Amino acid sequence: MSTLVGTWSSTTETAQRIIALAYAFREAKALLSAVELGIFDALADGPLAIEALRQRIGLHPRGTRDFLDALVALGLLDRDTQGRYSNTIASMQHLVRGKPGYVGGLLRHLNDREYPYWAHLTEALRSGRAQFGGGEGLYPDLYSDPADAELFAAAMSGGSLLTAQSLAGGFPWRDYKTLIDIGSAEGRLPVTIALAHPHITGGGFDLPAVGGAFERYVAKNKLSDRVRFYPGDFLRDPLPEAEVLVLGRVLHNWDLETKRLLLGKAHAALLPGGALIVYERLIDDERRTNSTGMLSSLNMLIMTDGGFDFSGTDCVSWLQEAGFCDMRVERLTHEQSMVVGFKRSR
Amino acid sequence: MSTLVGTWSSTTETAQRIIALAYAFREAKALLSAVELGIFDALADGPLAIEALRQRIGLHPRGTRDFLDALVALGLLDRDTQGRYSNTIASMQHLVRGKPGYVGGLLRHLNDREYPYWAHLTEALRSGRAQFGGGEGLYPDLYSDPADAELFAAAMSGGSLLTAQSLAGGFPWRDYKTLIDIGSAEGRLPVTIALAHPHITGGGFDLPAVGGAFERYVAKNKLSDRVRFYPGDFLRDPLPEAEVLVLGRVLHNWDLETKRLLLGKAHAALLPGGALIVYERLIDDERRTNSTGMLSSLNMLIMTDGGFDFSGTDCVSWLQEAGFCDMRVERLTHEQSMVVGFKRSR
Repeated sequence: MSTLVGTWSSTTETAQRIIALAYAFREAKALLSAVELGIFDALADGPLAIEALRQRIGLHPRGTRDFLDALVALGLLDRDTQGRYSNTIASMQHLVRGKPGYVGGLLRHLNDREYPYWAHLTEALRSGRAQFGGGEGLYPDLYSDPADAELFAAAMSGGSLLTAQSLAGGFPWRDYKTLIDIGSAEGRLPVTIALAHPHITGGGFDLPAVGGAFERYVAKNKLSDRVRFYPGDFLRDPLPEAEVLVLGRVLHNWDLETKRLLLGKAHAALLPGGALIVYERLIDDERRTNSTGMLSSLNMLIMTDGGFDFSGTDCVSWLQEAGFCDMRVERLTHEQSMVVGFKRSR
Repeated sequence: MSTLVGTWSSTTETAQRIIALAYAFREAKALLSAVELGIFDALADGPLAIEALRQRIGLHPRGTRDFLDALVALGLLDRDTQGRYSNTIASMQHLVRGKPGYVGGLLRHLNDREYPYWAHLTEALRSGRAQFGGGEGLYPDLYSDPADAELFAAAMSGGSLLTAQSLAGGFPWRDYKTLIDIGSAEGRLPVTIALAHPHITGGGFDLPAVGGAFERYVAKNKLSDRVRFYPGDFLRDPLPEAEVLVLGRVLHNWDLETKRLLLGKAHAALLPGGALIVYERLIDDERRTNSTGMLSSLNMLIMTDGGFDFSGTDCVSWLQEAGFCDMRVERLTHEQSMVVGFKRSR
């Protein structure tokens, strides 16, 4: 008996880890549905008893208590001794709409688009083809409806929060005066940099559909005098001129030919001595440790016709081909890194 | 500057944790698709180069490398210096079909049924209603097709591996001679107990559709002389007589009335002095820590018409009402626990 138990125990932990990984979609979806349902917004002004919260959100009684207590167990809600639910510090900061640290836009995007499309991962791997409905690619689909466009812009904004904060402190901004973020969505990156560095002016370049959201976001941050919107299509138009250009989580959406096209346009638009900052969930050069980079690349498989993620070394070689010099690769956040390249002065 | 960065850093970690939780469905789905595609089976006989593996599995070149390297980064595959992929010890033990520690049946069930149905969690929470297609409940749906029935039986078998191993060592089997597992699926629990305790005889009770899978599994383990199949429908038929009955992850599928009906039938079928073992992902009594129990209950919301998970205290009270005595609650695995109750000797 004890020998058998001993043999079993040695494999128990690995089996439990595999099973926990397999079930992880349940935890993720509970969080995504909580954001969709507006649970954290409903608790923004203070704790609510279960029945008041249930009616505010419009939930059926059957699953309400399990759902709310699952969120408690996941650390996303608190429950006091009278049974009233409230936001944790983390959910108050990051999951209540309108808070400066809000990342809920990203989560709504994951809930509406990624979770259901990822159900077709196997098919995408077999066919090599994007799995969403539209035939024209993700962006025309996203940007055909202004409400969808704003949702996506907010999602990308949520996704760039941490990177923008890190980039504000991790680049020698004092040496430059102008910054334009290419594919800016609502502009969280230029706003974050401009707030931290009052001498910086510039803005964001994106499809015209995003202009309204961009201008509102900039106005809310009282930066309309220094940060403006540059409408355009980076596949068709030249990029606007600046000392620093940023291409953040843009290149991974496109095939290699388009990646090279965009890097060439960025080089042409930069002033002499200027810098291009590319940031992404870079895959580690050994392709062994950064699962989020590889999974992000699979997301491109599912969502785009030719997009893929890449390593720092890949990116440095493309920058070199495009004429950049003095490249360096630096980590910005737990999962995102930047590659910087410079245009020769002369 | 430095003050701002300081303020940001304090919230960075919580935002990263929220974002990682939100993205966890990608990791889970990559594992589930790997099992669906048979990656681990294809590597059962040794390492393969990427092109050989790709062709064996039938993958398109576009996503293959990212997918395999994501599995490397998740610890589910190894890649050697020549670029050949192989199973890790963990995936060899638990994800290769036919291995004694195989849990892939559970993962195929999660992939085929749970992941896509969980896309409708929000709707289930609003309506209180099961979200799968059929109107008659999960089991008639599952058991209408023999292939589906066997898949589900294998899934439940995968899910009960660790619990069965723990139960074999954590119950005074020397005091009992007969054991019948109610809702046995293919019978991993009675087989595991009978292998560890040669004096035990008994078997498994389940719907007739599962009989073939049960008998093959028992024969493979050379236990046909001690472990047999008892066909029946526990909603309509009495339960078979034994000294120990097990109801494992059965009660959570049903509404309270049916839970009570089943506990009453178990009490009637037990011999005097016999024991009923109920095991489940019990929710902690405080409903604050065991997120898997609460999420399992949300799974019942999505998958069944009235099912819900429960705490040890809930279960003890139902056992008491059904006439059991001397109840105790003990942990079996990281996430599952058992409630034991005894029928008076008299």
